[in-house]
Amino acid sequence: MTVLILTNEEDVTADMVVLRLGEAGVPVVRLDPADLTTGVALSGEYVQGACSGHLSVGGRLVTMSGLRSVWVRRPGEAATRAAQPSAWLTQEASQALYGMLRITDARWMNHPDAARRARHKPWQLHLAQRSTLAVPATLITTFPQAAREFAERFPDLVVKPVSGAHPQEPPRAVPTSRVAPDTDFSAVAFGPTLLQRRIGKRADIRLTVVGDTLLAARKPADPDADPDDVDVRFAPSVSPWLAVDVPRRVADGVRRYMRGAELAYGAFDFAEDADGIWWFLECNQSGQFGFVEMDTGQPIAATIATWLAGDGDPDGRCAQGGRGAAS
Amino acid sequence: MTVLILTNEEDVTADMVVLRLGEAGVPVVRLDPADLTTGVALSGEYVQGACSGHLSVGGRLVTMSGLRSVWVRRPGEAATRAAQPSAWLTQEASQALYGMLRITDARWMNHPDAARRARHKPWQLHLAQRSTLAVPATLITTFPQAAREFAERFPDLVVKPVSGAHPQEPPRAVPTSRVAPDTDFSAVAFGPTLLQRRIGKRADIRLTVVGDTLLAARKPADPDADPDDVDVRFAPSVSPWLAVDVPRRVADGVRRYMRGAELAYGAFDFAEDADGIWWFLECNQSGQFGFVEMDTGQPIAATIATWLAGDGDPDGRCAQGGRGAAS
Repeated sequence: MTVLILTNEEDVTADMVVLRLGEAGVPVVRLDPADLTTGVALSGEYVQGACSGHLSVGGRLVTMSGLRSVWVRRPGEAATRAAQPSAWLTQEASQALYGMLRITDARWMNHPDAARRARHKPWQLHLAQRSTLAVPATLITTFPQAAREFAERFPDLVVKPVSGAHPQEPPRAVPTSRVAPDTDFSAVAFGPTLLQRRIGKRADIRLTVVGDTLLAARKPADPDADPDDVDVRFAPSVSPWLAVDVPRRVADGVRRYMRGAELAYGAFDFAEDADGIWWFLECNQSGQFGFVEMDTGQPIAATIATWLAGDGDPDGRCAQGGRGAAS
Repeated sequence: MTVLILTNEEDVTADMVVLRLGEAGVPVVRLDPADLTTGVALSGEYVQGACSGHLSVGGRLVTMSGLRSVWVRRPGEAATRAAQPSAWLTQEASQALYGMLRITDARWMNHPDAARRARHKPWQLHLAQRSTLAVPATLITTFPQAAREFAERFPDLVVKPVSGAHPQEPPRAVPTSRVAPDTDFSAVAFGPTLLQRRIGKRADIRLTVVGDTLLAARKPADPDADPDDVDVRFAPSVSPWLAVDVPRRVADGVRRYMRGAELAYGAFDFAEDADGIWWFLECNQSGQFGFVEMDTGQPIAATIATWLAGDGDPDGRCAQGGRGAAS
């Protein structure tokens, strides 16, 4: 049974997992959908009520029914490195590849449907609430008056994107920023704006979840930091990430979240306040983990490798051929 | 409780349903996401573990928790008619709108996740097999040799796109075409190609499914037709669509398919062969139905209106406010 990793060639984080799988003697196929139809070929046949599929990667043939798991890491857009790329070819290749992978019994980290849904920030916030995680008061609005009233109730606010990275090439992370006290919010009418109560934080928390395993890291805030430096990704760093235990209540909430989101992997960001409460900021279903593993020595790559190599819980899908009408 | 219809202004098919809902006295809000943030505004608040949302359409305010159902018909891309449209604004507006709608208790026709998944042709074919519908022998491949061997086993083939319409502006339907007997298939290596045994058809079948209701229409093939005219959408028409009963076996299969696909609406295309067997060609989760209703008089719009106005089966999501940590 083979582990399939969908990612680009430059993904060194995936290398860490490939190494672990190799050490464990687990067959791995790594491919970038961008290489369809140059280095990567596919074929699926539907005859007599049964279906079967194959992938060929660099001359190596893999049976779809022999896939143990699929890790969707950082795949390129399908067929963008083809001899004559086009939007049409990308669409055809993407539908063919993912359409076939969807009917295997492989377990996914993460399933494309769950991954896509999990990107919706309004949905994340609600799921975090339902999972009884602490969520800072938040408003997403295009009503300037709603923004003004929210700012009266919660005078110390940050603003951040509703969606993820800016879709330029290459995509750009948009920093979370503090809202100035005299902001008039008229411009809110031109685009949905996410305002959130600023958590006076004493540390940032990155909690990486792999299956049932929770690995948390903590980076203490610089006591002399400018209070306007709210985004740990952009603030000057004075301390490395250090491994930390997960409070029981948070662990329970995070497990509820992961079940609700149907995710096998998630990178949670929390802000720890002066009372030690971990406030949910977001869960990135494809968040990086290499920097945490480097700082803390936590075995994230090894845990992912173990999950990918583990037995799945197939729910009775295709691959061996079902019953059906004659062809 | 309000029915929300997401579609563009020019959608006259939606008008038919709006009319029926109006006759039944059911409140309807129709909006095009393209009109965010000009005619359409939104707001969602997450405070004290509860969330609540509102939409404003043409000055009319709708509470998200008061949405009975959401009909995703032919929505435009979010915010594309904004004063200053951009890819970034579209992404922000789309995430905000759909992210908020996802956490309501409304029932969907169709849910975005199910709709997206249902577009994958390889997945459709497999689900149809599993649902015990008759599926013509099909190959999707980038291996020329696999194509050649398939053509030897099934000498009379058609070729059709793996994905849907060509992504030009406006999108263009790509006709299903007959494969010439002397085709050498070398070009298959450059892009996934869907080959399918041609069904010698005596009629085309369009089966429209709305919830539990199946409405089938049949268009007899012209006995003098050119056998190369395989695509009913492009062939000259000699007969209107006529209502027809659904064979029990097909009805059972179609219901299994709809459950497996988690769809509330689907437009199935079948080819009826000389033995009366209905061969599954595809299920379009957003297929048009106006032309069938016009020809047959079948009450498709009224059935959709009834479904949208009906009681949902909410599975305990947000809107009234759940339990959670303080803000």
